[in-house]
Amino acid sequence: MTEPAFITPNWIAVDWGTSNLRAWAMGPEGQVLAEAMSEDGMGKLVRDAFEPALLRLIGHWIGGGGVPIIACGMVGSRQGWCEAPYRSVPCTPLDPAALVAAPTIDPRLSVRIAPGLKQTSPADVMRGEETQIAGALSLMPGYDGVLCLPGTHSKWALISAGEVVSFQTFMTGEMFALLSKASVLRHGLQGEGWDDAAFDMAVSDALSRPERIGARLFALRAEGLIAGLAPASARARLSGLLIGTELAGARPYWLGQSVTLVGADRLSAAYARALKSQGIEVRRLNVTNCTLAGLSSLALQTEAIR
Amino acid sequence: MTEPAFITPNWIAVDWGTSNLRAWAMGPEGQVLAEAMSEDGMGKLVRDAFEPALLRLIGHWIGGGGVPIIACGMVGSRQGWCEAPYRSVPCTPLDPAALVAAPTIDPRLSVRIAPGLKQTSPADVMRGEETQIAGALSLMPGYDGVLCLPGTHSKWALISAGEVVSFQTFMTGEMFALLSKASVLRHGLQGEGWDDAAFDMAVSDALSRPERIGARLFALRAEGLIAGLAPASARARLSGLLIGTELAGARPYWLGQSVTLVGADRLSAAYARALKSQGIEVRRLNVTNCTLAGLSSLALQTEAIR
Repeated sequence: MTEPAFITPNWIAVDWGTSNLRAWAMGPEGQVLAEAMSEDGMGKLVRDAFEPALLRLIGHWIGGGGVPIIACGMVGSRQGWCEAPYRSVPCTPLDPAALVAAPTIDPRLSVRIAPGLKQTSPADVMRGEETQIAGALSLMPGYDGVLCLPGTHSKWALISAGEVVSFQTFMTGEMFALLSKASVLRHGLQGEGWDDAAFDMAVSDALSRPERIGARLFALRAEGLIAGLAPASARARLSGLLIGTELAGARPYWLGQSVTLVGADRLSAAYARALKSQGIEVRRLNVTNCTLAGLSSLALQTEAIR
Repeated sequence: MTEPAFITPNWIAVDWGTSNLRAWAMGPEGQVLAEAMSEDGMGKLVRDAFEPALLRLIGHWIGGGGVPIIACGMVGSRQGWCEAPYRSVPCTPLDPAALVAAPTIDPRLSVRIAPGLKQTSPADVMRGEETQIAGALSLMPGYDGVLCLPGTHSKWALISAGEVVSFQTFMTGEMFALLSKASVLRHGLQGEGWDDAAFDMAVSDALSRPERIGARLFALRAEGLIAGLAPASARARLSGLLIGTELAGARPYWLGQSVTLVGADRLSAAYARALKSQGIEVRRLNVTNCTLAGLSSLALQTEAIR
């Protein structure tokens, strides 16, 4: 997208996670006028560094001020810009009345942060995904069923009557990253390519015998050493083992349910393939579209409140 | 141990792993005259660096030469000093005829390396543990049953008639290290202390529902955030979850079996406690004693062959 010289957005949408900061200048019809991204994620910033980081990225969009900025994600955590306390499920994914204003020095800035959700038992939390869920529901009005949000910490959420009834987080994505970059398995995973058959078999293995995960992981290394297992197969098997183990644990969420996936394209495709092998057909939504739809719903409702 | 000024060992035992190099000067009655350790593990050395690293550590023990040196561990891997090809199970854990002489420049050095074991299906490998197993069998002559060797990559081995019949490796120790040092869980695990009750409950949870491991791991983070879970409890639960999941996968090895643990004291105690909760009483052997007994059996048999 080529950015016009002057932009006068109606409001600015911000997705501020642990690793990245993304922003969109939004027009009067909800269209995206411009977008911007930096690596100033929450994880790299002390409290005083949030405002300057935001100004560096979108200072040229706010003119003389008065442009509402609505943010979601880890920016609202205790280690973030300003804590937006978790709301407790069951509840709607977002509530405009629960937005928390971030303290700012620049008088042109008006930043409000969406809180995440918590569940007491079993203990669980989310920050950012509640906005994706709200967006998914605004893209699928009246949706009842299950949302699966694959990612670093995959979430499964049961939706009924517009509320998040319960949810569960799995460390699947972080485990894949740790095992493929920092464990002994990394030696056998380097290179390009993918092996669908290896993925499918691993999903099936993990679903039928999830307790063997620790042994099946080491087998990737052993087969690399003594049987020349190809990196493309090893990587697909690692992914299949971890996703299959997640599906085994999340079975109460998807068995006999309507499932919609909200996630990055490649990862969502892998989850869709694994679920299809279990007879579950899924609908897929683009995660950025959901984030923007969720923040837009907040912007509209906040506007109505004023 | 205070080292005497001059040592004239009959032979030298070496345990050369990925992270460390350990050596023992052995006397005529099998007693330890001196020991030495450095951080020159296999993982830090290129091929030409092994001989200098060994000479730095034990050069003062070999006098004019003629002192046999017998080594086990990753030093015999393809990335080690010189490859000692895996022997295939079922077989005795060690075979003096399979020792591989390392190429040396210093004429005083005579180094032989013990090979590891491999299993074709399911694919598995070990290097170093075969020596511990041989030592355990020399400390418990006629032992038939199961050996469990907890560690970075825990091994379970079925022993019959002096042979390793089959074995299986679990990545439990490496997972604990990755999750506690490099994952999002690290935030809630810092500090001292241990919580036996939390460990016991986690072992039981993991054994009964191993497929939930990915969710139970994230719950440690969530309970830390919203319920103030103490680091001592979180660490014990992480250990219990991973050991419990391993026990669930290794059930065919221990159920109704005689089990002997060979490992570091604290880790072995945790495994013993977890197995006891399942009605399995275990015998425990010190891992260094087993390594030395295994290398000693090689030294004796090699002597007899000459």
